[in-house]
Amino acid sequence: MNNSYDAIVVGGGVNGGAIAYQLAKRGASVLLLEKGRIASKASGAAAGMLAAQAELEDDGPLFQLAKKSRAMFPKLAVEIKEASGIDIGLINKGMLKIALAEQDMKEYNKIISIQQACGEQAEWLTGEEVRKLEPNLSTSVMGAMHIENDGQVEAPQLTVGLLKSAARHGVVIKENVEVESVKSTNGMVTAVMTNEGEFISDQVIIAGGAWSNQLLSRTGLPLETYPVKGECFSVTTHQALLTKTIFSHECYLVPKKGSRIVVGATVKPHTFNEQVTVSGISQLMEKARNILPGIVEAEWEKAWAGIRPQTADGLPYLGAHPELKGIFVATGHFRNGILLAPITGEIIADLVEGKAPKVDVNPFRVDRLTKQLT
Amino acid sequence: MNNSYDAIVVGGGVNGGAIAYQLAKRGASVLLLEKGRIASKASGAAAGMLAAQAELEDDGPLFQLAKKSRAMFPKLAVEIKEASGIDIGLINKGMLKIALAEQDMKEYNKIISIQQACGEQAEWLTGEEVRKLEPNLSTSVMGAMHIENDGQVEAPQLTVGLLKSAARHGVVIKENVEVESVKSTNGMVTAVMTNEGEFISDQVIIAGGAWSNQLLSRTGLPLETYPVKGECFSVTTHQALLTKTIFSHECYLVPKKGSRIVVGATVKPHTFNEQVTVSGISQLMEKARNILPGIVEAEWEKAWAGIRPQTADGLPYLGAHPELKGIFVATGHFRNGILLAPITGEIIADLVEGKAPKVDVNPFRVDRLTKQLT
Amino acid sequence: MNNSYDAIVVGGGVNGGAIAYQLAKRGASVLLLEKGRIASKASGAAAGMLAAQAELEDDGPLFQLAKKSRAMFPKLAVEIKEASGIDIGLINKGMLKIALAEQDMKEYNKIISIQQACGEQAEWLTGEEVRKLEPNLSTSVMGAMHIENDGQVEAPQLTVGLLKSAARHGVVIKENVEVESVKSTNGMVTAVMTNEGEFISDQVIIAGGAWSNQLLSRTGLPLETYPVKGECFSVTTHQALLTKTIFSHECYLVPKKGSRIVVGATVKPHTFNEQVTVSGISQLMEKARNILPGIVEAEWEKAWAGIRPQTADGLPYLGAHPELKGIFVATGHFRNGILLAPITGEIIADLVEGKAPKVDVNPFRVDRLTKQLT
Amino acid sequence: MNNSYDAIVVGGGVNGGAIAYQLAKRGASVLLLEKGRIASKASGAAAGMLAAQAELEDDGPLFQLAKKSRAMFPKLAVEIKEASGIDIGLINKGMLKIALAEQDMKEYNKIISIQQACGEQAEWLTGEEVRKLEPNLSTSVMGAMHIENDGQVEAPQLTVGLLKSAARHGVVIKENVEVESVKSTNGMVTAVMTNEGEFISDQVIIAGGAWSNQLLSRTGLPLETYPVKGECFSVTTHQALLTKTIFSHECYLVPKKGSRIVVGATVKPHTFNEQVTVSGISQLMEKARNILPGIVEAEWEKAWAGIRPQTADGLPYLGAHPELKGIFVATGHFRNGILLAPITGEIIADLVEGKAPKVDVNPFRVDRLTKQLT
Repeated sequence: MNNSYDAIVVGGGVNGGAIAYQLAKRGASVLLLEKGRIASKASGAAAGMLAAQAELEDDGPLFQLAKKSRAMFPKLAVEIKEASGIDIGLINKGMLKIALAEQDMKEYNKIISIQQACGEQAEWLTGEEVRKLEPNLSTSVMGAMHIENDGQVEAPQLTVGLLKSAARHGVVIKENVEVESVKSTNGMVTAVMTNEGEFISDQVIIAGGAWSNQLLSRTGLPLETYPVKGECFSVTTHQALLTKTIFSHECYLVPKKGSRIVVGATVKPHTFNEQVTVSGISQLMEKARNILPGIVEAEWEKAWAGIRPQTADGLPYLGAHPELKGIFVATGHFRNGILLAPITGEIIADLVEGKAPKVDVNPFRVDRLTKQLT
Repeated sequence: MNNSYDAIVVGGGVNGGAIAYQLAKRGASVLLLEKGRIASKASGAAAGMLAAQAELEDDGPLFQLAKKSRAMFPKLAVEIKEASGIDIGLINKGMLKIALAEQDMKEYNKIISIQQACGEQAEWLTGEEVRKLEPNLSTSVMGAMHIENDGQVEAPQLTVGLLKSAARHGVVIKENVEVESVKSTNGMVTAVMTNEGEFISDQVIIAGGAWSNQLLSRTGLPLETYPVKGECFSVTTHQALLTKTIFSHECYLVPKKGSRIVVGATVKPHTFNEQVTVSGISQLMEKARNILPGIVEAEWEKAWAGIRPQTADGLPYLGAHPELKGIFVATGHFRNGILLAPITGEIIADLVEGKAPKVDVNPFRVDRLTKQLT
Repeated sequence: MNNSYDAIVVGGGVNGGAIAYQLAKRGASVLLLEKGRIASKASGAAAGMLAAQAELEDDGPLFQLAKKSRAMFPKLAVEIKEASGIDIGLINKGMLKIALAEQDMKEYNKIISIQQACGEQAEWLTGEEVRKLEPNLSTSVMGAMHIENDGQVEAPQLTVGLLKSAARHGVVIKENVEVESVKSTNGMVTAVMTNEGEFISDQVIIAGGAWSNQLLSRTGLPLETYPVKGECFSVTTHQALLTKTIFSHECYLVPKKGSRIVVGATVKPHTFNEQVTVSGISQLMEKARNILPGIVEAEWEKAWAGIRPQTADGLPYLGAHPELKGIFVATGHFRNGILLAPITGEIIADLVEGKAPKVDVNPFRVDRLTKQLT
Repeated sequence: MNNSYDAIVVGGGVNGGAIAYQLAKRGASVLLLEKGRIASKASGAAAGMLAAQAELEDDGPLFQLAKKSRAMFPKLAVEIKEASGIDIGLINKGMLKIALAEQDMKEYNKIISIQQACGEQAEWLTGEEVRKLEPNLSTSVMGAMHIENDGQVEAPQLTVGLLKSAARHGVVIKENVEVESVKSTNGMVTAVMTNEGEFISDQVIIAGGAWSNQLLSRTGLPLETYPVKGECFSVTTHQALLTKTIFSHECYLVPKKGSRIVVGATVKPHTFNEQVTVSGISQLMEKARNILPGIVEAEWEKAWAGIRPQTADGLPYLGAHPELKGIFVATGHFRNGILLAPITGEIIADLVEGKAPKVDVNPFRVDRLTKQLT
């Protein structure tokens, strides 16, 4: 009986953590299973931008989802600090989506109009205005879309913070436990089989990032997702080079605590290989130097990579399994896994409890692409 | 002229950082020189207890100094977070100075009386009361002095936070630069000579921890300090084993963010050797297990050591050089380097500015022991 | 067509490496797939003892296998050094299986007789004789079985050396690729399905250590193996404390290059959890100190753990799948994975080529335990 | 009396290790003092080329010294392996000093003539011939000076190997001990003063690399040396990209064991700062890609830097202190510290013993530059 839980979450990344945290706060007994170590894959590798407006440009369902999730961070930061002692490093100093070519300028001004029409803050700054805010940016920056509300967090701390807060609310976390299959009777989930035996629950949430497919395909639900490698590196200085996050088509530069900067990220689809290549670093360095010339004198810290799950239509999967009752899916967040974690936790907790989420989750339902095919 | 500064701080630890930060806030141009890497010695190795009442028992000058410094942390935490983005992990959940023998009980109750007489909060808890607060403590805990106001910080983050905040206020930090000698004319400091050349200033603050003597002895001021190695280790769990810091004659257990516990520290005098020994870890483990039996199932994280500067009378050195005008000294903090850093920063900044510190620093003056000898 | 190979080896540990190396040397085109990073699990965690006589006491099939494998190391060391530049650290300074109690003395003398009867070198040394060879051993050592031919290697270097040598012979190594299933037609293997797509071969060797079951169970061959965690730690000194490997019922101490000593290993069955516990280190330290008192002053280096595959009868699985033609299995080596790697590589390469191995592999056949049950 | 030694070596790098090893082999009781950790500075950072002919082009005294030292490696490798178990990774697969411009071709052919006249092997290879030996080199390689006898070692292993072998011969190694001054009576050394007290000897060898000046200047012997930072990075592949070391004016690529490649090194004079910069890595990557295009797909491993001691005339200092009897100096090896370590050990041991070294050490005498000035 001590192997029986109200819900089992598969995946010890940021979304698995957010889901387990929400469920436990609502009173459920939860087991979280992680095949390796917690926070060790894409969630631990992310740069932590909350780029709702910078990354998502039009007024679609993902934009709405992202804005709602972004708004949840201040309260979540306080909760995690209280429950676990961990500071998630939430910084709300805004983002500059910089234009490096004429066409960027046109495009960004159009986006500003769209976003302002949705009631969002967004403004155009000339190159001079940008360099007044960030004097170390190069003159190749022709202007920027200034987004005051796109902040950032420390992604590894958010992930560990959610998981340790979940544990404080009673969630049992088991690492190095791999789910091999999901057991069911009469179309209803009853348990998961793992390399450390069976764990019983009639609610199983699959939040395994790019590795979710593997398990789902054995439940008769092959999702249309694929892995995309992203490589990053970081540098440190004593005097800060930047205040705001710099976002461009080419790369992003995220100023972290202690005058550290994370530069990312390459986009290499269809591989699970987590190795950092010389070409990846070399390209990022060149792009970063073009934007922030002073970075060449910064101290090299380290490089790393993460594997993110992308979907055919670019939207995440958030919903119930269409055939097997008791399975829920949260994956396919691609570059927005950190940003969307708070709302993902709430949506899935609502679905598990049988409540309607506050957000319309129809655009993210799990069978949307397969259904279209038939 | 760009090699000339209002003040030069020698030492990139927590006290060097606090001093540089205070001076820069007051408008001085400051150069900080660190022979290795910042925060890499005792300041980066400390467990971060703010044990003003637990460590210092009677109503002497050090107790007064420690209480004042402890009170400065909340404001400092906010400043550092604002200036550098770094959370110093200030936790004010109190400390339990536990009794493991009859004589401890007597001793601690006497201390409680003394401290209450000074107006400090301190109370006696029985074994049962202690285990109600901290259910994982063993029955070998016979009771405890409960000190609500002795908190803790993350020592490495405090150190780096002070230094990066100092940099934000204009302090120039140079690592791998070793001061070889102090130059003077007519008994007044004019510059320091380093392995990277000369830097000019008429105010030089020596805050090099256990390594301060080396430089001071070349200025005709051999201090009566000696190095004391302390070894620590840390473990992690998912479910937190402790809430409050546990302090005993034997060892201390400091619960850190994310359900991590730091266990320290051995006391091995008269060595600069920073190596962790099997005997050190073994003894700490045995003592910790006696206090917190559940620690045996915790996950091992790592072990490390730091070298702390102790003085003949147990008091730090805070003051001006008795003969060479323009030299100031801040060392000899032993186990209280983290706790005393805020007040140290203010005292030395006052002295450099020629102001009287708010605290009577006569007991800490640099020539007190040599003078007694003659 | 470039996804087609003569053979696919699943598992980037020491046995997968040995098999791939042998197959490639014999001219096969080989693909090696590793779900994580090569040499990152039990093979990278092993202490590297070649304890054919110390570990395996009677004249059974495993003893014979072990002796043959042990004899292959000198030639293999030369080959690996030549092909990859890697020194596997083969040391042939013998082993002392020490007696710490009267009953050990009786038992070991009986083993000596048995082994001498098999033509193996083995002799009894008194406590004084032992301490003449190893003066740092404690007086609690009552005597020892001295085995001149049980040497040791650096297990991580052997593993990486085999894999890099395999690559030099043309083996393609892919990391972070996980085999999800084996495809077959008419009872014959045709390909493997992975998270990076399909790879074609009619010969698939499963050498995934404790993780082999997972894949095998999906081929209708659930093996009777289970994981056993082993924790180790290492220390360093400048003056060497030991020359020979010390082996006891309690723990072993393996003197490595550069005066390093590896102390192992705990035995914790039925878990894949790779975390090192305080209790594990604490117990090993106590046992090691009892044998080698001087170890307490050695410098602590690090601790780690590995998960080893054990079988119900203690023998490894080496053989063909009983039903699915083209699948071969090499797992269940428990504490002898390093020792048995050379012969495992040859046996499996023989089986893949359809040759009879020089060793009788019937005792190790894959269906031996299931068959007995029916 | 146990603080008294025949000789004290200051510096735990490759040359300090070689000297201590030679002295101990000859029967001396030796104490080696290292201010930080052994092998942690330039010796641990070096790429390990034995580029006697590639680096030193004309027939001067340094060329002669280098050739003699290079010839000592095979025997030394065997000795270190025997004494410490450490393989120094000596590889004798030759070096290609590649021409990337017309003027390189002319210059290198001239050097070949000079070296052949000295009796050294050296030959010119066309671009096609070079790519026949190393097919992965780019077509920008116009030809190369092929030097069969310039091999390489693993510099950290050589350094640790020498030190551990020295320990096996009785040398006492103390880390974290800093020599503050040298004591003398009547112009003869009597002891060294350190942060851990006094150690007695009438022979003191200063082999502290770029940090030697600091101590020497306090003995009245300021040497004309200065620090030069060199940055490196390394990559790994499974299939080897190179067999021979590639040397150019721009950068070098050294193929290490296990298909690893070390790329080095920038040249940044007059700094002790050991930090790796973005510009350093970026430049090395660009140069390496121009020579070996396939390196862009290699896996990034890490980056590091070392501080090497250079002299005004480019020759090392090897000799006795001109005024203080009993002090010997070995520093200023710049890029040849690894290559020259064997002969440095022998020369200094000869001088300490009062014997004439087999090599004429007059060009390397310590007062050569100061004497010229007067």
